[in-house]
Order: sequence, then C-alpha cells, then structure tokens
Amino acid sequence: MTKVVLNFKTYAESTGMAALELSRICEEAAEQYDVEMVVVPQIADIRLIAENVSIPIYAQHVDGVGFGGYTGHITAASVKAAGASGTLINHSERRLKLAEIEAALSSCKAEGLATIVCTNNIATTKAAAALKPDFVAVEPPELIGSGIPVSKADPGVVTGSVEAVKRIEPEVGVLCGAGISRGEDLKAALELGSVGVLLASGIIKAKDQKKALEDLLSGIQR
Amino acid sequence: MTKVVLNFKTYAESTGMAALELSRICEEAAEQYDVEMVVVPQIADIRLIAENVSIPIYAQHVDGVGFGGYTGHITAASVKAAGASGTLINHSERRLKLAEIEAALSSCKAEGLATIVCTNNIATTKAAAALKPDFVAVEPPELIGSGIPVSKADPGVVTGSVEAVKRIEPEVGVLCGAGISRGEDLKAALELGSVGVLLASGIIKAKDQKKALEDLLSGIQR
Amino acid sequence: MTKVVLNFKTYAESTGMAALELSRICEEAAEQYDVEMVVVPQIADIRLIAENVSIPIYAQHVDGVGFGGYTGHITAASVKAAGASGTLINHSERRLKLAEIEAALSSCKAEGLATIVCTNNIATTKAAAALKPDFVAVEPPELIGSGIPVSKADPGVVTGSVEAVKRIEPEVGVLCGAGISRGEDLKAALELGSVGVLLASGIIKAKDQKKALEDLLSGIQR
Amino acid sequence: MTKVVLNFKTYAESTGMAALELSRICEEAAEQYDVEMVVVPQIADIRLIAENVSIPIYAQHVDGVGFGGYTGHITAASVKAAGASGTLINHSERRLKLAEIEAALSSCKAEGLATIVCTNNIATTKAAAALKPDFVAVEPPELIGSGIPVSKADPGVVTGSVEAVKRIEPEVGVLCGAGISRGEDLKAALELGSVGVLLASGIIKAKDQKKALEDLLSGIQR
Repeated sequence: MTKVVLNFKTYAESTGMAALELSRICEEAAEQYDVEMVVVPQIADIRLIAENVSIPIYAQHVDGVGFGGYTGHITAASVKAAGASGTLINHSERRLKLAEIEAALSSCKAEGLATIVCTNNIATTKAAAALKPDFVAVEPPELIGSGIPVSKADPGVVTGSVEAVKRIEPEVGVLCGAGISRGEDLKAALELGSVGVLLASGIIKAKDQKKALEDLLSGIQR
Repeated sequence: MTKVVLNFKTYAESTGMAALELSRICEEAAEQYDVEMVVVPQIADIRLIAENVSIPIYAQHVDGVGFGGYTGHITAASVKAAGASGTLINHSERRLKLAEIEAALSSCKAEGLATIVCTNNIATTKAAAALKPDFVAVEPPELIGSGIPVSKADPGVVTGSVEAVKRIEPEVGVLCGAGISRGEDLKAALELGSVGVLLASGIIKAKDQKKALEDLLSGIQR
Repeated sequence: MTKVVLNFKTYAESTGMAALELSRICEEAAEQYDVEMVVVPQIADIRLIAENVSIPIYAQHVDGVGFGGYTGHITAASVKAAGASGTLINHSERRLKLAEIEAALSSCKAEGLATIVCTNNIATTKAAAALKPDFVAVEPPELIGSGIPVSKADPGVVTGSVEAVKRIEPEVGVLCGAGISRGEDLKAALELGSVGVLLASGIIKAKDQKKALEDLLSGIQR
Repeated sequence: MTKVVLNFKTYAESTGMAALELSRICEEAAEQYDVEMVVVPQIADIRLIAENVSIPIYAQHVDGVGFGGYTGHITAASVKAAGASGTLINHSERRLKLAEIEAALSSCKAEGLATIVCTNNIATTKAAAALKPDFVAVEPPELIGSGIPVSKADPGVVTGSVEAVKRIEPEVGVLCGAGISRGEDLKAALELGSVGVLLASGIIKAKDQKKALEDLLSGIQR
C-alpha cells in the first residue's frame, strides 16, 4: 500500500492542539483512500495524538542512545511508550553522524519501531540503504519547502535511488520527498519507483489542510 | 523555598509508566516537606505526567528554534503545550553552542517557561548568568553520577559560583548539582549559598526511590 | 593601536599561495598606517605565512582540547608551533558549545595565544566577556558578507556591547565585525567605542585587494 | 603494497618539531620494508613535514566544504596546498554526519586526495563503502588505544568488513585499526583480508618510536 508520511516539523499549524486537529484530518483521509497515512508530530505531541487518533504515528527523530545518562536525548523506548510506531532518522533539518544513524537504527529495531532514514542524494541513499532501515526517503535539500516536486525537478535522483537500493538492499523501500504537495506529484513519485512520499509544508501550510491532503491523495488510483 | 529538581535522564527506572510512578512519589514527598519539587522527565513523557500529577514539570532540553522547518527539534512551545512549566538548558549530557543557549532562553522567555542553564565550572557559570536565565546549575562533570557530592568534593565551585553570579546578575539563583543524594548533601548545598539542588541517579537508581527522596529532603529544616 | 583583523575564511582568493600574497599586502599596508594588522588564514596555511611575513597571524579556530587522542582537532599547541600568535574562537561559521569556548580559552592562555571570541548580539557578548578573552568581536550574523556595515545598520549592538563589556570585564576589548569594508566603516566602528574591526569578504573578494585595504585603513586618523 | 598509516592525533610526542622527527623515522622505516608508509599529522603540521620528508602525508580530517565563507573549517584545497596527498575522514574522534562524509569525499576527489573513511563496525563499514572512498578503516571504538589488537579481540569485524565491502564496492580497500602495535598484529590483519593498518598510540607513545615501528613492520614478509 502506498505510504504517505506527513512531517509536522515545528510549525505553529501542527503543534499541540493543532497537531491533534491535523492528525484527525489525516485519519479521515486515510479511510477514504487506499493509503497508509502516517503522521510525524513533535516528540512532545506524540502522546496527545496517540490517545485520540488511530493511524500510525512516527517520531521526527530518535537519538542512538538507550537507557542511561543521556539527558535531553530522544530514546526509542520513550517515543514508543508515548505511542509512536516508527520514526524519521537523519532528516535534513536534524542530520546525524553516520555512527549515530546506525546506533539509532539498532535502538529502533530493538523496540520494534519502523525506520525511515532521510538522505540528500543517490550516494547517501546507498549508504543509508546499506544500514537496512525499513525505508530511505531521498530529499534533495534545495527542493525542501520549495513547492517544486523532486519528481519533476530531478526525477533521476529518485530512479537512481530506487536502482541503487535494489542493488544494495532490495528489501528497503524508497520514499520520495521534497516539494511534493499535489496529486500529480504523488503519482509521478510512484511511477518513478518509490513506494510513497514524505510531505510537510505543502500540506501543513496550506490554507485548507484537508483539501490539500485530499488533492494529494487523489493522485493514487484506487 | 528550596528548589529540588529531579532529572529523570533516560533511565529505564524513569521512562514511560515508571516516570509517572516516580513523579507521584515526588508529588507526595513535596507535600510532606517545605520544598518546591520539580520533575524533569523525557520529552515524550511530559504529557503523561502532566495529565496525572500536579507538581512542576520541566523539560530536559529545549532547542533555540521556534515555529518552522526544524524537524526533530524540541521547541519551547511544544513542551509547554504538553504541560511543562520550565526546562533545563545545556545539561552536561546535552551541551549547546553559546548562541543556541541564548536563543533557547529567548524562546523560553517568550513562552513563559522557567529556565535552568547547566554549567561545568565558575567561568561558564559567569557566562551563563550573563544571559539571565532564572537559575544556573553548576555541576562539575567528573562528579555527575559519582555519588560524591560537589558540596563535599569541591565546595569552592559552589561558593565561587554564588559570588560570581551575585556580581554579574544577582537575581539569578544558583543550584548545585552532581553527586547529591543524601539529606546532608542538600543541607551542605544550601549552606554554601545555593537555592536548591539538581539530582538524578542518586534517587532514580536507588533501590527504594521513595526512601532515597525522603532521606534527601530530610536535609531541609522544616 | 587600532586592531584590524582580516579573516581569510576559505576563499580561493586567500588559500595557499594566494594567502601568502594577501598576507604580504597586509604587511605592507600595516607599515603605512598606524595599525595592528592581523591575518587569519586557514590552519594549513599558517606556517607558509609565518615563514614569509612578520605581522601577527591568528588561527581561525582552536578546539578546547590539548595533547592526546583528539584526531582531527585543532590544538592551541599546534597552531602556535606553526607560527600563530592568536586565534578566533566561536566564529559564526564555526560556533562552539559554551564549555568548549571556555576550554579553548584555557588552552590558548596556557600557550600564550591571544584570543578573539566572536558573538552575535549583546547577550552573547556579555557571556563571552565573562570568560575573559582578550577581545570579543560582535557580528550580527545577518550582516556578515552583506556589505552593510554593522556600524551603520545596527550601531546599538556595538555601543551596547562596549557598555556591557565595560561592566562585566573592562579589560576585554570589543571589536566590531560584519559588513565592514570602507574607511568610513572603520572610522564609525572606532567612534562607537570598539578598539578595532574584524573583516573578511569586503577585502578578500575585492577586485583589487590592496586598494580595498588601503581605502579601509585610510579611515584611521594618523 | 601493504599500507601502514600512522595517525599522529594531537599527542605531544607528535606535534610540531616532534611530528617532523617522527615523520623522519617513518620515512627511514619505509625504505627498509616493502610498505607504503603514510604519516597523518595535525593540520598545522602538514607543511613542515611536506617541506622535509618525502613519504605521503594525509590530513586527519577534511570538512565537506569548499571555497567560501567557512571560517575554521579544513578544506581539501588547503591541505593539498600544504602538501597532503590524502586524508582520514570520520575518525572515531572526529565523527561526521553522513551528508558531510559524502561532501568531504566529493571535495577530496575534486582535489585528487586519497581518502580513508573510518568506521566502527560492519554496518557502518558497508555504508561507508557505498560512498566509494579509496579505503575504509574499521576500528571498534572500545579497542582504540587499548593495546588489544582488533585482529585478536574481534577478527570477525575485519573479515565481515572485508566481505561486505567486496559485495558493495569491491575496489574499496579495507584497513584494520584499533589496538595494533606489533608485527604479529599487522600480520594477522593482513591475513584477515585487510590491505593495511591504521595505527596511533602503540607507536607514538612507545618509549622508542623507531624500535616500535620496526617491530611492527617486521610483521610483513619481505
């Protein structure tokens, strides 16, 4: 099933009660379309959403540390306890050291959390795939928040990532991010070989979040 | 009133439901002793505790960013929405750049969150005080988790910090951390001029957390 | 004597042999004007310049570590051995954690290196001054490389920094950076109470570096 | 030819004039044994050694930035200008973000510098190999500086790395690091499939550096 992952970032329109409201919109939309809809709120908002909504919730970040003296870090155990079932790792706005990515993946596997490692080009996609996350989401940084979909601006980075991942770890799924907001962007992303998309501002900053999300999801042939 | 701040770090004994249990122990103890008891759980646990316990909850860390494209960061707005009324900043296990400390303090002031900036010696205490947080908590890193109280191992760092802060920003309170777990440690910390203590493993890893906390708080003359 | 500090950054126009050429221009200019001219090349270029030029050379960065297992770090001892007599610390393009700034200052003092801590506003200037470097250079990040001199765009940040430093550690000198390239900018900076300036692109990227530098230095009344 | 890479770290015994002295010892040893001996001094020491010694010199670290406003960073162009012909990247004491490793490799390739990416286990070795450096040096962090050779303590990490690299990018060479100091360690490392070793304290902190190096190199059958 197509995976549609909505990263809430730290926008006002997706913090606290607004995060809950947006998650409800996502939940409704997920019922209408044949899609796995995932919401990715701030860490502090995970529990609020988990208590009220039943679609999967991913954390925006997990540190590669476990139980112990790690004040201020985000552990896999804590986000799972709050209700998350997966997490982004190494988002372009929260890049990690290579060894930290690997440690975070280990922690997540131990806790049973699904993992999406974000990358910026084909080379880093290959490196990330070699670490065997569940998904890699390739997002050229210059397109993030641009409104220009990667599937149009640089389709080669998607097809190249899909091919490279197939060669290195074929069971890793490729998601396509950066600049995606409309139904045709999603459709193009799937046609390029990705199994889903990673979204953010295109939906969250839309005047009508519900309408924007529905427009996007309409790109999937039922 | 003496401020007793318990940092939950990421210990198993203070994550998820265990964090709630420990917070209840702290709430009870706070009623028995003339003390402002503050719990500092992981970010993902703030809401669970806020929904069930009425003593102040501080975050372990806040990043110096606001609303926007800051995936994976901890914003003052999000921890406040979850129920926190303050935060640690620059803990020795989550050190920040100088400009980030200043930005985090600005965010927290805008949201009305109380702030405790952690420092490692007199020089950094002076620098932190110049930024006007509500509190500075001085913790020589080599004593953290050691069981050797700073008030005994290095009382000069406490008195020196108190004096330096008085000269630079007298309204900033000095807390005393590192190695504190018993009533006599707390008493000594107050006698050296601090207005409270920052604790962690001495209580959290104790066989009987409740008893350990009561032993500590008994150091305060009622 | 007015201190004029030229940060070479990593521009092509100030790397390797070009760094040596530019240093010679600075040396000649320093003889003509009543000014302490300091060049700040990349770490790898320090020795080349020290072997050929006799004006002071500062490093662009020093880490707060000493002898030991610190692969890839820049130690005070190594830049001194190469011929540097001082260093920038915490430049906006190489921000450090508060504890690292303090440790770097200690290393530099032990090696007899002069220190300039860079800051971004009055609050961080106060914090930096509390650590007692030789100089603080205040540079609002939004003006760096802008061509708009801080002395014109935001004179209050300079006078406010000068006043704040006078109150906290009066022996610390305030330098003024960001957007400075012409004689009138330098003159204005001195009139606002700074003891010198920190420059970069305005000189380095100038079509005629020598002419640009002379125009700048002409701002000093002989 | 077997590659023997000696990381000088920031030890007093390998800084400034001592770094030159040690490089001369390495140069002599390289002539006696059938080995490619590489010295890896601090950035500020590269030029001094390049001016006096003719064996290959690698930098300890290169940042993934090029010409521009990157104060305090180490560029491939600057270390090349100083005389380096290669570099370590991502040493365990100077870990980089994944995207930074990729950017540093691109810079180095553009400048014609040889690259050794350091990793901590088989998983990160695979990820690093996918980025196509010239070499990967696998060093379990707990063995660095331990005196216990990885070839003895954890031979599986070496053979596993060699196999994994062969599958992902067969032209990448595997070096073996951590705890290696004697001839038998080197011999074992080669037998496990590595093409050389990365050394540090075992030689640098030896009472007699020359003798320690000769003992090590004697492990290679002439």
